[in-house]
Amino acid sequence: MIIDVHGHYTTAPKALEAWRNRQIAGITDPSARPKVSELVITDDELRETIETNQLKQMKARGLDLTIFSPRASFMAHHIGDFQVSSTWAAICNELCARVCRLFPDHFIPAAMLPQSPGVSLATCLPELDRCVREYGAVAVNLNPDPSGGHWTSPPLTDRHWYPIYERLCEHDLPAMIHVSTSCNPAFHTTGAHYINADTTAFMQLIQGDLFKDFPTLRFVIPHGGGAAPYHWGRYRGLAQELKKPLLKDHLLNNVFFDTCVYHQPGIDLLTKVIPVDNILFASEMIGAVKGIDPETGHNYDDTKRYIEATLNLSEADRYKVYEGNARRVYPRLDAALNTKGK
Amino acid sequence: MIIDVHGHYTTAPKALEAWRNRQIAGITDPSARPKVSELVITDDELRETIETNQLKQMKARGLDLTIFSPRASFMAHHIGDFQVSSTWAAICNELCARVCRLFPDHFIPAAMLPQSPGVSLATCLPELDRCVREYGAVAVNLNPDPSGGHWTSPPLTDRHWYPIYERLCEHDLPAMIHVSTSCNPAFHTTGAHYINADTTAFMQLIQGDLFKDFPTLRFVIPHGGGAAPYHWGRYRGLAQELKKPLLKDHLLNNVFFDTCVYHQPGIDLLTKVIPVDNILFASEMIGAVKGIDPETGHNYDDTKRYIEATLNLSEADRYKVYEGNARRVYPRLDAALNTKGK
Repeated sequence: MIIDVHGHYTTAPKALEAWRNRQIAGITDPSARPKVSELVITDDELRETIETNQLKQMKARGLDLTIFSPRASFMAHHIGDFQVSSTWAAICNELCARVCRLFPDHFIPAAMLPQSPGVSLATCLPELDRCVREYGAVAVNLNPDPSGGHWTSPPLTDRHWYPIYERLCEHDLPAMIHVSTSCNPAFHTTGAHYINADTTAFMQLIQGDLFKDFPTLRFVIPHGGGAAPYHWGRYRGLAQELKKPLLKDHLLNNVFFDTCVYHQPGIDLLTKVIPVDNILFASEMIGAVKGIDPETGHNYDDTKRYIEATLNLSEADRYKVYEGNARRVYPRLDAALNTKGK
Repeated sequence: MIIDVHGHYTTAPKALEAWRNRQIAGITDPSARPKVSELVITDDELRETIETNQLKQMKARGLDLTIFSPRASFMAHHIGDFQVSSTWAAICNELCARVCRLFPDHFIPAAMLPQSPGVSLATCLPELDRCVREYGAVAVNLNPDPSGGHWTSPPLTDRHWYPIYERLCEHDLPAMIHVSTSCNPAFHTTGAHYINADTTAFMQLIQGDLFKDFPTLRFVIPHGGGAAPYHWGRYRGLAQELKKPLLKDHLLNNVFFDTCVYHQPGIDLLTKVIPVDNILFASEMIGAVKGIDPETGHNYDDTKRYIEATLNLSEADRYKVYEGNARRVYPRLDAALNTKGK
C-alpha cells in the first residue's frame, strides 16, 4: 500500500472560499457576517472535486490512501480572533471528514486547529477532540506561526504549546508542523514561508529538550524537512555546540520528514542523509507546485517517481517509506487499516 | 589559487565587543556613550587574532585568499538608529581593512553597510564609497532584514533597495545577501535565520524581475543558497507558475551560491543541481559551526574536503569553483590580483 501522508483539500468547491470571504468581511462589518448554515455544499459537489482531481491523480500515480486535511494556505490563523478561527476550522474539518466518508478507501482525515495568535492552545482542544472522536482524525496540522509570517509565537519547545502536546500524546496523534499563508510581503507563501517554517521548527527542536517532557510526541516536518537535510552537517554541528546528544538520539525518535521534495537530486539527498525509518511518503499533490517539469515530462509533485528511481532505497526501505513508517507514526491510521483488514 | 569568498572577522579582539556594549548602553544613557577614539586595538593584537585563527586554518587547509568582512552576527542593524549603525559599520570596516593591509596576500575586504530598519539605503552610500576607495573593498554584505528577524523591509526587488543597487553597479561590486543576528526568539541566528534569509531572498528574486532593471548586478547567496538547491524542483516549478523564464535565464546570470554546506551529501547536491559557473568556494570558517565532525574527524566547515571529494566536478570545474568564478563575479578582486601578477 502507498500512503501519502500530506494531502490538503486544495480543490474545495468555490462556495467555501466565498463563505470565507464573507466571514472575513464580517469581522469589521457584523451585518455581513454569514451563518454557518448558509454554506451549502452537496456530496455530489464534493465527489466531483475529488474524483476529477486528487483521486484521479492518485489512481494515475498508483497511490492508495491520502491523509487529508484542510487547505494549509487557507487556515490563515492570523485572520480575526479565536471565534473566527474556531468557526472556520470546524467548517474545514467537517468538509474533509465528509470527503473521507465519501471515499473511505482513499482518504482519512487530519485536522486543522482553530489557532489564533496569542491565544492559549488550550482553546484548540475541543475541536481536536471532536475531530478525533467524530471524524476519526489520525493527525493534526500544527501551525508554529499563527501570525502568518510575523513569527510572534514562542518556539515550539515553549510551555505555551504544552496543552496541545499533552492532548496529542493522550490521543496518540502526530502533528505535522505546517504554517499557513504568509501575510508578510518578504515571504512568498509556498516558496519561502513554508520552507522557512520547516527549517525554523527543526532548529527550535534542536535548541530545546522537548522530547524529554514528551517522549511519545511525534512531529512530521513537511516539505522534506525544509533546509534541514541539505544542511545536515550544519545541524549536527550546531547540536554539538549546544551540547545536545547526536541528532539521531536527540530528535529522530520523534521527528519525521515527508518526501515533498520535487526533483530527483533532492530525494536522493533526503534518502541518503535521513535514516529510512524517519522518512514518510508524501506529495502534497495539487498543491504548491502543480506544473509539469519540462526536464522529466512529469508533474513536479509526482514524488513517487523519485522514490522509485533513487538508488538509496531497497525494496524493504521503500515499504517503510510508503507504508510501514506511516503505520508506526500514525497509530490511529494503522488501527483504522487493521479494522478493514488492510 | 583557492579563494574563500565568505570569511568574517569573528575573532576580533574583545575590546571591540566591549566598545560595542558601551555604544549600546549609550543609546539609552548618553553619558555612557563611548568615543570612537576610545577603541584602541594595536596591529599586534590584530595579527595575533588572525595568525592563530583564520590564517592558521587557511594554511592548514590550503586556502590562499579570503574575502574578509565584519562579523555578520555583530552587524546587528536593528540596534539603535542610523547614526549608531554608521559609527559601528565604520569601525568594523576599518578593522577588517587593517587586517587586509597586514596580510595583503591572504585577505581582501568586503564591507558591511550601516543599514538601519526603515531608513533609506541612500544613507549607506558614503560608507560604501569609502570602503571601495580607501580600503579596496571588492564586495558588500547586504542585509535583507535589518530588523533582525522581524522582516519589516520590503522584498529585495522593491525600489527601496535601488539606491544601493545603482551604486553597486557603478562600482561593479557584488553583494552577498547576509542577515545578522536574530532578535526574534523563533529564529536561531545561524540555524534558522541565516538559512531562512537565503531561501527568502532567492524566492523574492524569483517573484520579481530585478535583473531586467540591473542586468549587471550580482548577488551571492551564502550557505549554499539556503534551501534553494535542495528544493530546486520546487523553485523551477514556482517560477513556471509565475510565468517567469527558466531559472537559468531568469536568475543565474546574476545569482551565485557559495559552498558553505557542511557535509559531503550537501555539497554533492549543490554541485549536481547548480551549474558550476554559479558556485563559489567558501567556508565561513571559524563561524557558525566550529566543531569537528565525529563522522569524518575533520572540521564541519572544512568545505574544501567536500569539494575535493565530490564526483560531480572535473579539475576544470574545480578551478572555476576555487578561483575562476570568483574572479568573474568580483571584478575588483580580479583587478587586485592582476596588479600583483596573480
